[in-house]
Amino acid sequence: MTDPTPEKTSEKTRWKLTIEYDGSPYVGWQRQQSDPSVQQAIEEAIEKFSGEFARLHVAGRTDAGVHALGQVAHFDLARKSDAEEIRKAINAHLRPHPIAVISAEKAAPDFHARFQATHRAYMYRIIARRPPLTVDAGRAWHVKVPLDAGAMHEAAQHLVGHHDFSTFRASQCQAESPVRTLDKLEVRTVPGHLGTGAEIQIRAEARSFLHHQIRNFAGTLKLVGEGKWTPGDVKSALEARDRTKGGPTAPPTGLYFLHVRYES
Amino acid sequence: MTDPTPEKTSEKTRWKLTIEYDGSPYVGWQRQQSDPSVQQAIEEAIEKFSGEFARLHVAGRTDAGVHALGQVAHFDLARKSDAEEIRKAINAHLRPHPIAVISAEKAAPDFHARFQATHRAYMYRIIARRPPLTVDAGRAWHVKVPLDAGAMHEAAQHLVGHHDFSTFRASQCQAESPVRTLDKLEVRTVPGHLGTGAEIQIRAEARSFLHHQIRNFAGTLKLVGEGKWTPGDVKSALEARDRTKGGPTAPPTGLYFLHVRYES
Repeated sequence: MTDPTPEKTSEKTRWKLTIEYDGSPYVGWQRQQSDPSVQQAIEEAIEKFSGEFARLHVAGRTDAGVHALGQVAHFDLARKSDAEEIRKAINAHLRPHPIAVISAEKAAPDFHARFQATHRAYMYRIIARRPPLTVDAGRAWHVKVPLDAGAMHEAAQHLVGHHDFSTFRASQCQAESPVRTLDKLEVRTVPGHLGTGAEIQIRAEARSFLHHQIRNFAGTLKLVGEGKWTPGDVKSALEARDRTKGGPTAPPTGLYFLHVRYES
Repeated sequence: MTDPTPEKTSEKTRWKLTIEYDGSPYVGWQRQQSDPSVQQAIEEAIEKFSGEFARLHVAGRTDAGVHALGQVAHFDLARKSDAEEIRKAINAHLRPHPIAVISAEKAAPDFHARFQATHRAYMYRIIARRPPLTVDAGRAWHVKVPLDAGAMHEAAQHLVGHHDFSTFRASQCQAESPVRTLDKLEVRTVPGHLGTGAEIQIRAEARSFLHHQIRNFAGTLKLVGEGKWTPGDVKSALEARDRTKGGPTAPPTGLYFLHVRYES
């Protein structure tokens, strides 16, 4: 997708937003015909305070139910303003959406939230216990069997590096190539912050990811955690370059877009 | 309040439940005329699976919006069952309530969840940042100014021990005496689990608490955290034994009933 910005932007200011949201009520980041999206909520908030329609460009489009703690997007605005006003005004008009602009800053006129991103980080939360989730409902994947985080981490190391990730790529993925370089895939047990039962966090870092790649990692690593697969099975699945050889896609509720970095 | 159990219970089994809930949708633990309560939801689930109405007796009645991670309650049931069935059946009938029975166990016939409790622990979560909360909305107190957790902890130590806590007691508190022994009141900064901004956790432990005692502690310690009060002001407020000398009552959303212990 090329950036559809033929309009004259020389007199506009480009703004970079860092955004947090609870993805539960949305069809995802991207605008759709009628259902509520994160993009639409923020674009409407910008229009309400500025009187201008500004198209948002985002670092990582998230699916329905996926959360973000440090999403980044940019937009152009003719209205003169400062960062503090931009942040406050958008947040004021976003109420009562569970979306917050954490920071706003002026960006270079050629800054692009998506195309200039050099590093993206995601977290996937799993709570392994028999009882249903309450305070963490919609905020983690509820797995009803105990998981061996050590085995999951060992398996994950087979995925790190430069590979053809066809096994972990959604059929609807629009990327030209299934080849990516995975910089980090760590699985660790963390003390339960809220709720009881062990919480397992998967952290994934790369320049970019394929569609559903991390959810397909999580669904596959869960098979290792419960002992149905060995770490070696994950290596074999990767080498098969065939989606049907991978594990199931884990639910969106456990996934969080953490942060994105840009070349300085 | 004495235990209203004149009915014949010799043939019944007494069950002890450990319960987790998101308090957001409820008027609190206790049954009310029409509005949804945690107690009513669980009593109805028990009745649906067993055909018996069983009154629940709880360790710590929580107010509207207050959460629990390790609440304890007991009830008597004539139906013969085992702990696994009790836990599963109640959870199945609780759906889609954000309430979960974490464990069920047979208790002694004279066990009492409230009157035999010797130690109760609560946590109060504060997220200090300017932007609104999203994934933590309804699960923490949103304070828009930075807080000095060290000063709050210092102030909290003036409250530990055997005191008349009239300054921190709700006017509607039904306890006979305002005197309690506070075993622990710790304030610490924890790494933000979800969301950005520093998270401050207050942990309070005592045999029992007065109504709103911890929320009044939190509201008062926040004044210290933002520099409006000194730790010494908290000592003076305690010594005044006068609710009007204490800080405001912090919102229920930050409060979690953590656990309760019984004499073994």
